[in-house]
Amino acid sequence: MTVARVERAIVLLSGGLDSATCLAWARREGFRCHTLAIDYGQRHRVELEAARRVSIALGAQDHRQVAVDLRAIGGSALTADLDVPKERSASKIGAGVPITYVPARNSVFLSLALGLGEVLGAYDLVAGMNALDYSGYPDCRPEFVRAFEALAKAGTRAGAEGRSWRIHTPLMALDKAAIVRLGQALGVDFALTHSCYDPAPDGAACGACDACQLRRKGFLEAGADDPTRYAAPQPS
Amino acid sequence: MTVARVERAIVLLSGGLDSATCLAWARREGFRCHTLAIDYGQRHRVELEAARRVSIALGAQDHRQVAVDLRAIGGSALTADLDVPKERSASKIGAGVPITYVPARNSVFLSLALGLGEVLGAYDLVAGMNALDYSGYPDCRPEFVRAFEALAKAGTRAGAEGRSWRIHTPLMALDKAAIVRLGQALGVDFALTHSCYDPAPDGAACGACDACQLRRKGFLEAGADDPTRYAAPQPS
Repeated sequence: MTVARVERAIVLLSGGLDSATCLAWARREGFRCHTLAIDYGQRHRVELEAARRVSIALGAQDHRQVAVDLRAIGGSALTADLDVPKERSASKIGAGVPITYVPARNSVFLSLALGLGEVLGAYDLVAGMNALDYSGYPDCRPEFVRAFEALAKAGTRAGAEGRSWRIHTPLMALDKAAIVRLGQALGVDFALTHSCYDPAPDGAACGACDACQLRRKGFLEAGADDPTRYAAPQPS
Repeated sequence: MTVARVERAIVLLSGGLDSATCLAWARREGFRCHTLAIDYGQRHRVELEAARRVSIALGAQDHRQVAVDLRAIGGSALTADLDVPKERSASKIGAGVPITYVPARNSVFLSLALGLGEVLGAYDLVAGMNALDYSGYPDCRPEFVRAFEALAKAGTRAGAEGRSWRIHTPLMALDKAAIVRLGQALGVDFALTHSCYDPAPDGAACGACDACQLRRKGFLEAGADDPTRYAAPQPS
């Protein structure tokens, strides 16, 4: 797909490998990219600095960080005082809705991107949802994305004026290895990114949470070097 | 409509007349109500205290306040350094999308209510959207509400498990006078509520912004006493 070179996009950046690849994708598609990171009270707050680094490195126009206190809602290992699962087997990852699911997170995040898009005149939103590796997250499915496009049309000034919104999820059907390969091809420096749900105080990845395991598997299967800084040596 | 007496609902409370009436309505419908107020950086922050008072007065189970910094997005007189319009004629109020529209606000608010509902097992969300007096707000229209119900179904664990969400907007088709009459009939103490967009430092209403004018008109047309504390005497 190619788009006119002047169109603006809001790119949701978590600081992880996936959203960095999304930003690189959107840049290649020709969008002027405004990046948005959400400080939602996540325990892995180090990813917010990663998002800022990634935004600059990949040539976004500007970067914003919006705070929303999802801890006040709770219900997830990422925002409440629940343990992040470790060393789950690959068969368990993706079976059912995991405890790291943050209720309605992507609805909140896309809504914030929608608001910013309405302010900046950016009617293309880009997000790293992926139905494959995280099939347990209901708000990462294509039907959710289509429903959000309809919501955007119904609930915004631009929509009321007849404009359509597009939610781009270039990673939706890719496995982690394919995402790594896409990111590599687009020149993403993965050393800038952070994925771990439960990092050490200095930001080093734990190597054992679902996010670390998926990321590591992605590098391995893509035959790519893993630039992640781990808190302890990882088995090879 | 009647519902089983054990069902829980999330009621979005702004602290204003409308959402207080919604809470009273939900209580009469038999819901166990969990109220949610959003601190979004609004200049009329005094309404957050009103929300807390209203929640207690109308017998909600509990009250939560979630912060989301919509100032980082801007684009509205309610969150950015723009002047709140004053003394607009009735014909202008409701013509076009007003500057007090906060981009994607109701998408963000309902998404937060959705997250809380998922955590608490409350699949009924109640909100004060009204298509009549605020027809200029795109996210107050019935099509937006229906689109959000579809989003809720697509994007939550409960929805993925086959459950439907209902967004109740009991005020959708009422004018302000009818809302006042409904609130009166349901025993709402309007003196606890706050509507003004641009209150004095002590919380007194300005009497001139769109919210004040609509509220005042509602009391007048309903033939009800206006308990609002104004910063200056109002013409009668």
